[in-house]
Order: sequence, then structure tokens, then C-alpha cells
Amino acid sequence: MLAIVLARANCQVEVFESRPDPRGNCAVQGKSINITLSDRAWKALREIGLEKLVRQFSTPLYKRIFHALSGKTTEQGYGDSSQAIWSISRKKLTEILLEHAEQEVGVNLHFDQRLTHIDFNSACSSFSYLKAGKKGHKEIDADYVFAADGAFSKVRRLAQETPRFSYSQRYMKQCYIELTIAANKDGSSKLTKNSSHIWPRNDFLLIALPNSDGSFTCTLYLNAQGATSFASLTETHTVEAFFQQYFADVMPLIENPIKSFLNKTANPLFLVSVDPWVINNKVALIGDAAHAMVPFYGQGLNCSFEDCFNLGQLIKQHHGAWSQILSDYYLQRKDNADAISKLSKEYFSRISAINDTSYNLLSKKIADEFALKHPELWPSLDQMLCFSPEISYVKAREISLQQQVIIGEIMQINFIEQCWQDEFVYQQLKHLVDLRLVPLLK
Amino acid sequence: MLAIVLARANCQVEVFESRPDPRGNCAVQGKSINITLSDRAWKALREIGLEKLVRQFSTPLYKRIFHALSGKTTEQGYGDSSQAIWSISRKKLTEILLEHAEQEVGVNLHFDQRLTHIDFNSACSSFSYLKAGKKGHKEIDADYVFAADGAFSKVRRLAQETPRFSYSQRYMKQCYIELTIAANKDGSSKLTKNSSHIWPRNDFLLIALPNSDGSFTCTLYLNAQGATSFASLTETHTVEAFFQQYFADVMPLIENPIKSFLNKTANPLFLVSVDPWVINNKVALIGDAAHAMVPFYGQGLNCSFEDCFNLGQLIKQHHGAWSQILSDYYLQRKDNADAISKLSKEYFSRISAINDTSYNLLSKKIADEFALKHPELWPSLDQMLCFSPEISYVKAREISLQQQVIIGEIMQINFIEQCWQDEFVYQQLKHLVDLRLVPLLK
Repeated sequence: MLAIVLARANCQVEVFESRPDPRGNCAVQGKSINITLSDRAWKALREIGLEKLVRQFSTPLYKRIFHALSGKTTEQGYGDSSQAIWSISRKKLTEILLEHAEQEVGVNLHFDQRLTHIDFNSACSSFSYLKAGKKGHKEIDADYVFAADGAFSKVRRLAQETPRFSYSQRYMKQCYIELTIAANKDGSSKLTKNSSHIWPRNDFLLIALPNSDGSFTCTLYLNAQGATSFASLTETHTVEAFFQQYFADVMPLIENPIKSFLNKTANPLFLVSVDPWVINNKVALIGDAAHAMVPFYGQGLNCSFEDCFNLGQLIKQHHGAWSQILSDYYLQRKDNADAISKLSKEYFSRISAINDTSYNLLSKKIADEFALKHPELWPSLDQMLCFSPEISYVKAREISLQQQVIIGEIMQINFIEQCWQDEFVYQQLKHLVDLRLVPLLK
Repeated sequence: MLAIVLARANCQVEVFESRPDPRGNCAVQGKSINITLSDRAWKALREIGLEKLVRQFSTPLYKRIFHALSGKTTEQGYGDSSQAIWSISRKKLTEILLEHAEQEVGVNLHFDQRLTHIDFNSACSSFSYLKAGKKGHKEIDADYVFAADGAFSKVRRLAQETPRFSYSQRYMKQCYIELTIAANKDGSSKLTKNSSHIWPRNDFLLIALPNSDGSFTCTLYLNAQGATSFASLTETHTVEAFFQQYFADVMPLIENPIKSFLNKTANPLFLVSVDPWVINNKVALIGDAAHAMVPFYGQGLNCSFEDCFNLGQLIKQHHGAWSQILSDYYLQRKDNADAISKLSKEYFSRISAINDTSYNLLSKKIADEFALKHPELWPSLDQMLCFSPEISYVKAREISLQQQVIIGEIMQINFIEQCWQDEFVYQQLKHLVDLRLVPLLK
């Protein structure tokens, strides 16, 4: 995406990638959580003319289906009934972007090139590569380097030695493995299609996302250590008991759940925060290299594509004045990445909690009732993140926090359990919204 | 300190240090903020039998003297009039510890040995060294490795590649340089002796600490970037105007303030946080390697010596059961290091703020009056950090936060400006202290 945006802005773009060309290769699956595209990603794809093509290979998801321990299901739309987020295979999306970059906009792609060093003053990079079994080295001079080298960014690791570079990597206590629910023989699905499926179990969580062939990819999030954890569940009978106790309904659908669980290595989940994103006005971090986040909201790719879209706008706006472009890029994106990163982290407890205390149910009811009356005054967080790219992540988080404060105050009203449908409660809520939420929504 | 503690517990200790032996060498000064020893450090020194010797080379500081912009001074004791923190040269303290380690307890010291690799499963380390101009390599097998290699720890950097290692380095917006106030020709001091001196100027701060020869070492903390900053002050006339505007009283005492300011490179200030501290039950981080903090409280060394003291106690307690020792060491020290690191960071704004708003003055008056009546119920943060090693850093921070909450509530009383000396205010304060502070003080 970045290479295409830059090439369309008439930059000469050379992409260096340490892995082999994924086109034609057997893709290494297993570590890639399904990708979902929402409106921030679509906006970026539309700008480079690829929206229609990518849409052909994507599957819409209209709602989440929650599966309680009892087997009971409840549904929650991502937006209104016509709005969807879209699931696509990581491999397919990569192929479309690579083909377009190389064939349509003149990007030069260099695979199997391992970065060994970067001079942060001159943006000169060194790469090592294998040619006919022999190791070679080359140096590449460039005006600017963008590090789009992902959550384990080598450029970022080298940048840790530059002056005043703040950096943090924090691991979640959960890890994850992927499990599979195959399609039926006739190609139909074993779970309701066009939906994501969630089994919230407080400390752990199972999510299933549909693939285009009718199968589902499941991700099980579970503590690395502790009482019920990847570390404690190491025997066939304990794993079986675990599935039977917590996932009895879905267990028969998963391919070899126990064997898969025992054979797979749990992958860690971590958040990365970096400051600054631009070093010496020469090297800029972008995407996961700048803001790797946890995947619960499906916004990592959306945020990264938005980085690229934003950069493209700044190039136009500043007519190629790069020091201005880079400093504005950092200023405009850093806080937004921090906001969605925090939201994603908070989301695990929100989505995995079995939140059916009477307090929680009532506050949700009050908020939902108000949202039904005034959808424009009470946008849901999903609505803002997935379908409102004009609302920044920072703004979306502020609005969501303010909504929680307001509902918290309404819940303080005496005997709220009895009076929540009374006119004066509505008036009080409306008053608080007008006072505090409306200014944020402008 | 660590080597001595371990050797006294009958471990065979080999110390590998990348720098040359500092004994006899001309010490590289300039980057070392003065070291102050308070009771946590003394407790550790007492345990290894070095308290008396170190005390001979230390200078007591009984109070802080604040210098207002007007030149007016106010004093604040660190504790009661007999209590002092002690200033010592970093070089002298290092020499005493090295001599004792090598001569008295049988520690083997290896200098000029640069760590190149460490195997976190086996605790096998590789070092490179120069011998007669030639580079050599050696591998050292050990049962356990302690990384006491400081704020820029190489072991910690290598550990970033181990699974689920959370790490953060955060830079403060301030940097610092050191300036000197020479002694008078007769050896007397130009500032009041046995005191630290502080020029709080909100966004920046000058601190002077006495040396044993009558001179003072000053540290100027100033923003790296922005309106008044190291980046903006680059011309003789602007630096001169800066000193004349903000440090008119002390400027004539400093040796070549303008030239020194312009010639010196500003050093960064940063905080490091790491989790876990012990990797594979084989390699443990300790001291600045585990918790580099900002120096405003003078607790970095005290915290590190306390790490060592605590480890020594655990070795006795667990009779050499190392996996238990290491896991308890991490559990007991991590939260305490986090607490003093946070306190140190918060302290910059506390000490640099010109806090003479009527609200602040009154709340301080109320707290001071109460502390005078009940010193045991209202310990100051200084008292707890510097002179009460039996109160952990975690507990000290909790108590201090609770004190702020209580005074905040007292300040809410109607017409508190008029009634603060009334009996009912005292009774209310005493009630809150009994209810919330006393349980913490137990």
C-alpha cells in the first residue's frame, strides 16, 4: 500500500523484503490472524483504485454472534443491517497489492534481501542476500527510507541506538493458537455465515472468522501461565476436559481440537509503542513497525492503510516538501495509533467478559434505547471505528469514554432500576449528551 | 555490591566488566550525577561491613535550600535535624567496593571484557577482549548470570529477543549538563555547606551538590527542544540572557557558565522498565539494568543496593535453592522498583514547580501542622524513602498518595482558608488519618 501511494506521487520506489516473493509460493499460514477490512482500509484502497478488485475476494461480516456457555447465542451487528466489515485472506490481499505495485505503478520489488544496517543520517541501507549459494552484500542510497517491516521491525531495533528514542514492547498475558472448522462436503458452513463467532469465557476467548471456501479459522486466546493456561494444559485428558467444559458446542466442529491444541506452539500477543516515528527527517516508521497492536478489534491493518492514505494526502498538500510531510505525518498519526492501540487492548476484557450483571445489562439497555432514538448522538464504538473514517481514532476513543462517564452518572440516579424508562431520566441523559457529547461529535 | 553479597554467601563470583579497571585510572567524570547514600544504601553497606569506611569519605547533607527567582532562600530538612543523606564521589565508592571484593571476599575481577553473546538457556556467555593488540574470544560457563551492566545493559538488549520479554525505554523531555562551582582559595565553599541547593524554575531546574573539597557540582535540567531549551540556546548572548534572567544569583559562582553551557553535550534522561527480571531461571537483571530511573530523588543507587541486600537475605532464607531465590527476588523487587521509578519521575514536576499558589501553601501548612503534632502518623515522603528502609518503596508511594487524597478532601471544606486551624478541621483530618492512613502505616 505504501509503495503504491508513493509511486502514485511520482516517487521512485524500491521495496526491499527479507522474505521470498509470496506470489506462487506456498504461503506460510498458521501465524496470520484473519484480516478484516473496514472503511478506513476501503478508503485507502479506493484512493489507489483497488477497491472493486479487492471486494471481489472479500466476504462481508454483518454481525458478531456470541455463544454463551449454555450454548445460547446472541447477535450484535457491527453497524446497521447494511453495514459490514470484510474478511479476506492475507495471501490474496498481498498478491493483489504486489501485482498492482509492480505491473501498474512501476514499483521495483527486491525479495530475499535482509537488512543488516542503516545509517540514520544518510538513509543509506545495507542488505545481505544469497546468490547461487553465495552470500552477497549491497548498499542502497536513498533520499528517504520507510520502515514498513512489521511488528518485529529490524529498522526499529536498530533505531533503539539513536538518541532519545523511546520504545516499548509489552506482552499480554494471553497467547493464541489457530484452529480450523472445515466446510461441509457440499461447501456449506458449519456455523452461520457472514458473521464472526465469539465464545467469551472471561479469562479466555475463542473467535471464529469465515473464509470464502465455507471453512472458519478459529483463534483461541488463553493465558500463557497460570491455572487454566497453555502452560497448564499439556495432557490429552486435561485439554479434552477444558474443551468439554468451556466449548462443548463448538468442539465437535473443530478439526482435531485436542491434537491441534497440543501440537501447536502458542503465539505471543504484544503491543509496540515508539516515539518518535521519524528519525533525522530521513527514516520513518509506518504500520506495525510504528504501532503493532493486539488484534482483537481487527484494526491493525486498517490503521496502517490509514497511515498510508494520510501520507499520500500530505504529499499532495505540501507539494513534496518532505521535511514538512514527515513531521506532519508523525504528528497526525502518532496519537491516533496510540488511541486504537489502547482501545484494542481494552477490548479483550470488554469482549471476553461475561457481562450479564444486572448493572451492566441495565446500563447497556439505557444506552441502546437512547441510541435508537438518537443514532446520530450516540454512535457505537464499532460504528466509529469501522464505518466512520472521518472520525479519528483519538476522537472515537474520547467519545466512547465520555459515553461511559455519562451512563455511569445516569446509573447513580436513585432507584434507577425502577425509573430508567421515565421521562426525567431521558431528559437528564439528553441534557448530559447535549452538554458533553455533542461538542465532541462536531 | 552484588559480587560481595554473593561471595559472602559462598558463591564463586567472576565479574566481567567491559571498561578498564577504574582504580588508578583517571576517572572519566562529566556524565556522573553526584551519588547520595541514604538509609537503604547504608543498610546494605552495613551488612557487608563497609559502612564505617564509606562514611569516612562521605559528606552529610541535612537539608535542601531553595533559591527563588528573587534570590530569596527557604530551607527544608530531609528528615529531622539529625538526619542526613550522604554525598560521595562515584569513583571513591567504586574503589572501596572493588578493593573489598577482590582483597577481602575473593571475587575475581576481569576488566576490558566485552560481552558479545549470552545463551539464556545455559547461562553461557561469550566475551571479546584485546590482548597485545589482538582480539580474543572466550566463553564462560556459569550456573547463573547476574546482569548488573547498568542503564544501557547489553544483556537486557540481548534479552529483548527472548520470548515474552516486555521492555520499555522512555526519554524525558529534559536533558542535563553538569557545571561546576569551585571552592574558595582557602577551601571554604561558595554556597552553604552540608546542604543541597535547588533553583526551581518550573520547566527547568538547577541543583548543586557539595563535594568534599568545598566545590559544588551543579546539574542543569532543561528541555531538549522547544522555546527555552538546549536546542534553542546556541548563541553566547541568548545563553547569557538565560542565565541572567533565571540564575542571576548563582551565575557569578559558576565556572564559565556560558562557555561550559555551549561546549557541553546535553545528556538524555530516561527510564527503563523490564518484565520479567529473571529469564529461564538462569539470567537475572539487577540494578539499573532492571530499572534505570531518573536521578531527581537520588534513589537509583539506593534501590540497587537494596536489590542486593534483598537477594542476600533470600539466599540465606532459601538455603541456596536458586530457582526459589530468583523468583522471590523478582517478585519482591519488581513492584518496588516500579514505585520508586514513578516517584522519581513525578518528583521533577514537584520539585521544579514554583508552588506558591495560596491553595498549595495552605495545604502544605495544614499537613505540616498535623505532622508536627503526630510525626509518626504523617511521615514525609523524604522520611520514608531516605530514612525508613523498613517501609518499602511501594508502601511509601501508597502512603504518600493517600496523604494527598486526605489533604485534598480537607481542602474541600467550606471556607477552609478561614477555619483551617479550628478544632473540627483537625478532628476531621485525624479521623481520615485513623481510617485510611493508619492501616497503611502498620
